[in-house]
Amino acid sequence: MFQGIYTPIVTPFDAQGRIDVSKLAHNLKRWSDTDLSGIVVLGSNGEFAYLSTEEKLQLVEFAAQHFTKDKKIIAGASLESTAQTVEAAKRMAALGVDAVLLLPPHYYKGAMKEDILYQYFTDVADQSPVPVMLYNMPGNTGINLSSGLVRRLSLHPNIVGIKDTGGNIVQIAEIVRDTPEDFAVFAGNAGYLLPALCVGARGATLALSNILPEHCCRLASLCAQGQLAQAQKLQLQLLKINTLVTGTYGIAGLKAALDMLGYQGGLPRAPLKPAAEEAVAAIRAELQAIGAL
Amino acid sequence: MFQGIYTPIVTPFDAQGRIDVSKLAHNLKRWSDTDLSGIVVLGSNGEFAYLSTEEKLQLVEFAAQHFTKDKKIIAGASLESTAQTVEAAKRMAALGVDAVLLLPPHYYKGAMKEDILYQYFTDVADQSPVPVMLYNMPGNTGINLSSGLVRRLSLHPNIVGIKDTGGNIVQIAEIVRDTPEDFAVFAGNAGYLLPALCVGARGATLALSNILPEHCCRLASLCAQGQLAQAQKLQLQLLKINTLVTGTYGIAGLKAALDMLGYQGGLPRAPLKPAAEEAVAAIRAELQAIGAL
Amino acid sequence: MFQGIYTPIVTPFDAQGRIDVSKLAHNLKRWSDTDLSGIVVLGSNGEFAYLSTEEKLQLVEFAAQHFTKDKKIIAGASLESTAQTVEAAKRMAALGVDAVLLLPPHYYKGAMKEDILYQYFTDVADQSPVPVMLYNMPGNTGINLSSGLVRRLSLHPNIVGIKDTGGNIVQIAEIVRDTPEDFAVFAGNAGYLLPALCVGARGATLALSNILPEHCCRLASLCAQGQLAQAQKLQLQLLKINTLVTGTYGIAGLKAALDMLGYQGGLPRAPLKPAAEEAVAAIRAELQAIGAL
Amino acid sequence: MFQGIYTPIVTPFDAQGRIDVSKLAHNLKRWSDTDLSGIVVLGSNGEFAYLSTEEKLQLVEFAAQHFTKDKKIIAGASLESTAQTVEAAKRMAALGVDAVLLLPPHYYKGAMKEDILYQYFTDVADQSPVPVMLYNMPGNTGINLSSGLVRRLSLHPNIVGIKDTGGNIVQIAEIVRDTPEDFAVFAGNAGYLLPALCVGARGATLALSNILPEHCCRLASLCAQGQLAQAQKLQLQLLKINTLVTGTYGIAGLKAALDMLGYQGGLPRAPLKPAAEEAVAAIRAELQAIGAL
Repeated sequence: MFQGIYTPIVTPFDAQGRIDVSKLAHNLKRWSDTDLSGIVVLGSNGEFAYLSTEEKLQLVEFAAQHFTKDKKIIAGASLESTAQTVEAAKRMAALGVDAVLLLPPHYYKGAMKEDILYQYFTDVADQSPVPVMLYNMPGNTGINLSSGLVRRLSLHPNIVGIKDTGGNIVQIAEIVRDTPEDFAVFAGNAGYLLPALCVGARGATLALSNILPEHCCRLASLCAQGQLAQAQKLQLQLLKINTLVTGTYGIAGLKAALDMLGYQGGLPRAPLKPAAEEAVAAIRAELQAIGAL
Repeated sequence: MFQGIYTPIVTPFDAQGRIDVSKLAHNLKRWSDTDLSGIVVLGSNGEFAYLSTEEKLQLVEFAAQHFTKDKKIIAGASLESTAQTVEAAKRMAALGVDAVLLLPPHYYKGAMKEDILYQYFTDVADQSPVPVMLYNMPGNTGINLSSGLVRRLSLHPNIVGIKDTGGNIVQIAEIVRDTPEDFAVFAGNAGYLLPALCVGARGATLALSNILPEHCCRLASLCAQGQLAQAQKLQLQLLKINTLVTGTYGIAGLKAALDMLGYQGGLPRAPLKPAAEEAVAAIRAELQAIGAL
Repeated sequence: MFQGIYTPIVTPFDAQGRIDVSKLAHNLKRWSDTDLSGIVVLGSNGEFAYLSTEEKLQLVEFAAQHFTKDKKIIAGASLESTAQTVEAAKRMAALGVDAVLLLPPHYYKGAMKEDILYQYFTDVADQSPVPVMLYNMPGNTGINLSSGLVRRLSLHPNIVGIKDTGGNIVQIAEIVRDTPEDFAVFAGNAGYLLPALCVGARGATLALSNILPEHCCRLASLCAQGQLAQAQKLQLQLLKINTLVTGTYGIAGLKAALDMLGYQGGLPRAPLKPAAEEAVAAIRAELQAIGAL
Repeated sequence: MFQGIYTPIVTPFDAQGRIDVSKLAHNLKRWSDTDLSGIVVLGSNGEFAYLSTEEKLQLVEFAAQHFTKDKKIIAGASLESTAQTVEAAKRMAALGVDAVLLLPPHYYKGAMKEDILYQYFTDVADQSPVPVMLYNMPGNTGINLSSGLVRRLSLHPNIVGIKDTGGNIVQIAEIVRDTPEDFAVFAGNAGYLLPALCVGARGATLALSNILPEHCCRLASLCAQGQLAQAQKLQLQLLKINTLVTGTYGIAGLKAALDMLGYQGGLPRAPLKPAAEEAVAAIRAELQAIGAL
């Protein structure tokens, strides 16, 4: 049963582009001590697209060893072909993750009709030793998982939820309406955490919770307690910093913010570049403005 | 001060394509007896694009005479040029409307940079005898009024609010955050009424409230009272009928639904066609499913 | 039978925003003396969206009186409703135009399915006293007239051609392939005049031919004579100035260029603004670079 | 110096999803005996996205051994990170390919600003032992390589051309205009082969030339000889079959067509499915209609 706030953790790299495990260990320790329900390893913010198969497995294994056993770990296992994805899911399951997160295959966009996607997800879910969480990320994939498709997939016993980063709040509400009670609908971005919770989302996977896990958890908690006015205030307060580290400056900005807040972000991998000075300044100013720094 | 639920009223036509004023009078009387805060004449659902200048003024005048004086009337005054729009605003103001609703000019999309739009709206607002409400409708216009532009425009003393039909809930939240306390941020579609209210929208202008004004008002009321669970349930319940009459079957579907519910929808104007049999059946089935019929 | 190069003429306005007929007369005289096959009055570049019904008719009448009888006049008669469009077509036909140019209705984009558009165009064509030319302009309307729809419409005896400003060269080729021999497929922008002619377009309606009619006619002529190398050279040479006056700086830029070249562009109507200094400088530099100034 | 027609070869798989090298050898032999100038291994039609690193290298090696030495081999080396791409380019170069074809990294679309892309391509080109050909494929990547960016990149001594599958013929013309004489501008789809050649493209990489290499080469040849009327006729004739095997039915359709024409297409990899019966029938009918079968 997946619920609460999950952090899609960044992957710190050193100046030579290698995974910096000491920084990762440091962050995992800190996230362990928060109210987060878990982490997602190898999500978009984890730069999974820049990692080799070996590095991916190494990361999952490392996270499984260093993150608290009290919380859950979901691992991104997305690859373009069905066979590759099944293999990744099996290997990650063997390393102890609680679920795998799956994007739709998306390179051959024109061919990815709903029946192809349905087959892909059910084929993988049939063979994955651990539950599958769908990952709707149209901004990066160019493909939207419609509420109709999600409804059909939610009937599969091994497909247990969806992280929706499309931001279409009507679609999120439709998915809540159309899926079983125990299907975990997760907001995929802190910009609409409160709206998603208000229409029935059970949790969220938020890049912002890399840096501000307590704020994100508190927003969910206020909403659960019916403190709508305070929740609204906090939601509005978090909008700008969220835009800075998930939109304007992206992963590089998120890593810079981690450094400011006592985490260790490390560098992104090329072709991404480290946050420029003006990005760092803007992020710092906003963190100060909301009292996080 | 604009708040609460407004209905963007449909314009009933007869079989010869003429405005059917008796049907309109019937509807205005019924809407007068609801909890609606007002109506919008000549909105998108009013088929304003299919009306001559004379017909538009006739409609506004008729609505002013037949709608209750206890509620407000906003009139759509959008035209492509600044001069035409100013003239429309003046003539509508003279007929007694409380505000005018203004789309961005949009035929020359490539040329409608933010500075052009800023100038357009401020020029019209400078000369309009009644307050201006902005109307963001990217689905029809191909132009989005960004939160940055709306923030600048909200500082104009005669620009008092925005109806946002873009459906981007983050943008709606940003507009609430960035505009003065008394700037009226309105949801523009019932699909995200609850989410919009949760981030601070003060009201809404909803095609759905043509047919289900009480449901829409109750949802707003539940949210205001902090009855989040019940509000959520009602929001989910209204999603499908809302999609049918604002998306799938559009204005023709909305008019058919009015006929089912004791209002008088009349026919749409060509090139729009009356709702086909299967549209009528789907709408009727859903109205029955939610107990409205 | 429509072929050759047509100019979609600009409408000069004076400082008070009135149509400047003396400037218009000057331009009509000059265009009369070129190799153009005709003009289009009330096209997009004519700022038709900013004109009242009376002004539109006045313009058509004026053009019919002042343009050479040796060439053709096509008039833009697009309005959103079927009835309005039919009336406009009839009144323009009465003023002596050779054909009317018709955009698809586009405000209610979601409702403009192909069967609706098919009905609209055939209804208007049935009632128009003069032939109808389709006008595909997805950049402004948000709607594409597919090759399948155009094929069906081309079978109507009173629909005689299409101006395609979508720029999809495959679609233009498909339309040539699928329509009768005497159906006039026209390129709608000088950026792809040569490619369109190479796949069988019979003519073109080009904003660029407001200012450089001889260049446009020569390119068509070179292609007709099989002088492909020279045609290619001229096509490449015209790309940049074409982008400046149809893209980057739009109608305002086009009017500024007219002034430089001995025509009289006049001012655009608000919300459009006159070309800024840097626009004028860039256009002048490019006209000099290609030897037109 | 790259010119002429290249085939982006399909990768045949057997029923177990393994690369079927005997089918591949058969095809390579046949393509060797045509007027093609070369092949592209691991292009989009080669299902590169579904292959492991080992399989990719195996394929390149196999093609290098079995394709005629008289023609060129270009290999797709695209990966998301700079380091991965450089390594792939080096390993492919060591296997004897004449150039590598590079998509822009595209998973993190929002971050792929032009300066990032410029850096990526120049970093790879600096380190690649063989020339780099750019690959613009916005339909699959969601990113367009603008003519301005391509102009800058064309100045790099190891970036020698571009395959443009965007289909924007104006952009292709701009690239011809803006890049050095010896920069190879290639059309990326047979739908606009003639238009691209007419504006100065020097060659093309065409999925269609998997099945109809002679037709594609003849179209290029007719254009080179100034036989515009015949070229136009052939271009129109090829449109429909091209749409069937590159659009409507995609790679599965292309493989089915290969089987019909004496090549050996094999199966696609899941999640792609083999062409359905009605796809096979439509393709067969069209191949018969144009006399290819």
